[in-house]
Amino acid sequence: MEFLKGVSKKEILELEELLTQAQEGDIVKVNGAVHAIRDMGNVAFVILRKKDGLLQCVFEEGVTNFELKNLKEASTVEVTGEIRKEERAAHGIELRMKEITVLSEPEEPLPLPISKWKLNTSLEAKLNMRPISLRNVRERAKFKIQEGLVRGFRDFLYEQGFTEIHTPKLGAKSAEGGANLFKLEYFHRPAILQQSPQLYKQMMVGVFDRVFETGPVFRAEKHNTKRHLNEYTSLDFEMGYIDSFEDIMAMETGFLQYTMQLLAKDYQKELDILGVTLPDVSGIPVVRFDRAKEMVAEKYDRRIRNPYDLETEEEHLIGQLFKEDYGADFVFVTHYPSKKRPFYAMDDPADERFTLSFDLLFRGLEITTGGQRIHSYPMLLEKIGKKGMTTEGLEQYLDTFKHGMPPHGGLGIGLERLTMQLLGEDNVRETTMFPRDLNRLEP
Amino acid sequence: MEFLKGVSKKEILELEELLTQAQEGDIVKVNGAVHAIRDMGNVAFVILRKKDGLLQCVFEEGVTNFELKNLKEASTVEVTGEIRKEERAAHGIELRMKEITVLSEPEEPLPLPISKWKLNTSLEAKLNMRPISLRNVRERAKFKIQEGLVRGFRDFLYEQGFTEIHTPKLGAKSAEGGANLFKLEYFHRPAILQQSPQLYKQMMVGVFDRVFETGPVFRAEKHNTKRHLNEYTSLDFEMGYIDSFEDIMAMETGFLQYTMQLLAKDYQKELDILGVTLPDVSGIPVVRFDRAKEMVAEKYDRRIRNPYDLETEEEHLIGQLFKEDYGADFVFVTHYPSKKRPFYAMDDPADERFTLSFDLLFRGLEITTGGQRIHSYPMLLEKIGKKGMTTEGLEQYLDTFKHGMPPHGGLGIGLERLTMQLLGEDNVRETTMFPRDLNRLEP
Repeated sequence: MEFLKGVSKKEILELEELLTQAQEGDIVKVNGAVHAIRDMGNVAFVILRKKDGLLQCVFEEGVTNFELKNLKEASTVEVTGEIRKEERAAHGIELRMKEITVLSEPEEPLPLPISKWKLNTSLEAKLNMRPISLRNVRERAKFKIQEGLVRGFRDFLYEQGFTEIHTPKLGAKSAEGGANLFKLEYFHRPAILQQSPQLYKQMMVGVFDRVFETGPVFRAEKHNTKRHLNEYTSLDFEMGYIDSFEDIMAMETGFLQYTMQLLAKDYQKELDILGVTLPDVSGIPVVRFDRAKEMVAEKYDRRIRNPYDLETEEEHLIGQLFKEDYGADFVFVTHYPSKKRPFYAMDDPADERFTLSFDLLFRGLEITTGGQRIHSYPMLLEKIGKKGMTTEGLEQYLDTFKHGMPPHGGLGIGLERLTMQLLGEDNVRETTMFPRDLNRLEP
Repeated sequence: MEFLKGVSKKEILELEELLTQAQEGDIVKVNGAVHAIRDMGNVAFVILRKKDGLLQCVFEEGVTNFELKNLKEASTVEVTGEIRKEERAAHGIELRMKEITVLSEPEEPLPLPISKWKLNTSLEAKLNMRPISLRNVRERAKFKIQEGLVRGFRDFLYEQGFTEIHTPKLGAKSAEGGANLFKLEYFHRPAILQQSPQLYKQMMVGVFDRVFETGPVFRAEKHNTKRHLNEYTSLDFEMGYIDSFEDIMAMETGFLQYTMQLLAKDYQKELDILGVTLPDVSGIPVVRFDRAKEMVAEKYDRRIRNPYDLETEEEHLIGQLFKEDYGADFVFVTHYPSKKRPFYAMDDPADERFTLSFDLLFRGLEITTGGQRIHSYPMLLEKIGKKGMTTEGLEQYLDTFKHGMPPHGGLGIGLERLTMQLLGEDNVRETTMFPRDLNRLEP
């Protein structure tokens, strides 16, 4: 009987191993995709694309036991060669190729010039050919950094005593109701796709005190803007036994601090590829909603049209003001109007027109909505009534509160928006692997 | 201007801090939910439920500045008290309460006896009152262990050079087609919920070489069994530049080894609560599909009815045989019949009736399906033709292969099933936080 014993080391070396272990003159074996071929006559440079970077390989007549004309860009290959120092190559080394084994060949030439440093292709074309356009080193670096953001979120919250949960995306009823729900039939019953794990994470605060989830959410909004998606990845947490909603903002600040450090430590290569400088998150200013509106009105000589609403332009100007006056990339805007927040939001006892809630703006764009929630059963019923809603479909949610819940609150962060702002992109689709919008359901 | 500086230490102590830092006689402040009150006359025990365990608190007339009759089970409280050693209490300490502040109170008594060690309640009742039944310490421990499984999967794969991806659940076309798709309308276009991230993770192998995703998948199957769900969490990975499909099984073995160590290190408390002994995963036997059928037929005197299909009973008996004869809880069954595998499965060049694929059985239940995929564009077209399918909707997937893909393969693990088998439960709903099945869409 054969037994598998786990992962064993292969003869093939990864780029990092080449850089840390291999010596000049070593004969090594590597694999990768032929990213580009630059034929200079007697010599050709074959750039191999590996998961962690590019490797310059040298093709020499008489040395490389292969016909250059038989090597195609986008083939995948296994190469045996000799390590040589070469200051002009990336990483300071190159591989003098001796043997090449072709593992696979393309049927057609690539439709995009992916080996160019910047892929000067329209967003539309990049999205249509996503599996190809992401082979560009800069394009793929965006998603490596996105990985770091999610990783930082989880690792920080584990450290802070949170439990990860997985809540269903198919349901009978949603958190906020309304028109922006995708509807479907579930074994002859009407069902919806959850627009947020809100009700579930709140219910689980009664079990684990602190919970988080990273997963897809679905919004059937008919917005077609540069910052909206109909499906996105939400980083959600919810925490019990808070003293005030400031605890939630403090936790988010902690997440950002932890994650910027993680990026600097493990994702510096990708940050360099994209020329990204990490923002300072040592302190994040906090301003009330009404005060922020006044500050913007004063500084930029604008009129406040509606004291209970924040225009996109105002949001942008708040970001600009805090950058100009405080050097801050982030700003917490607190005490949003009750009318603009869902039924579970806790009103401010000092002024019930406002809530104990906040948005986090990053360079003038909302990337987080959060706040304290109502934990009292009678208060929840009252608020549901005030909002003109019914309790239908909310029975189990409400039962949780009937049976005791600690004071709590939480937030949701849009992962693709956070990535977009961090990388200085101007369209959220640039930082979404396979975006879903009004017009796009493929690939 | 106020600035938030991150998470600051609070006066409140967590259970772990009590156990590692507090000394007998220290006056400390803790919070939690009143899990149970045991009134003994002059003295009462108040058991606080905290996220990481239970804490015994002692109520004494004249010492505790509170009326016991005003304290209700399921209230959440903040307590100030004195630490005392007490061998008979969990963790060897108890808290002599001085002050109690009630943070919230329930409206009604709890509908389930959650403070009992084993919640002797029907599965149906537990699921109907999930946010309450999970407050039972044993019930919630299952999901803490589930967290450990996902964490192990991710951390091991990060170490192995995998990149985490987030692929859309809404799509125009699915991986395997067929009748088990949930359908919906997406802005006046037909759409489906993905039954697997299969096509996306394969496309991303061309970008990152190795990718993984942990997320929900949706199957509209009309099975109503103890092991099927209509929505579950899938742990998926896909890896390029494999030498054979054995590389994938070796990677899964590595994941299991890493994760069992992680559970032993960080989740021993929960394993003890549930009385779970971790399985030995130092070596996992591998057997061919046809050979496994023969072995079961011989040992248990069964007739092979269909050489190209595996009955549930046979699967169970394979598990039993390998336990009895090799002491193995896991077994890889390889070379599944081509007819039973989807179009992207690589046929065995030695015998095209079978594929270079496998299932991993854990105590007689399939928890993983995986294998090598076709990476050649012409071979894919041929296989699609053979299966009687069309390429409609697969254009972008196929284009990826037209433009070169390395040899690759991967797998998907059903998280809830893996948890179920590890914990020795007999229904997958026991290890699903909010199950979705033919009859259940709530809570």
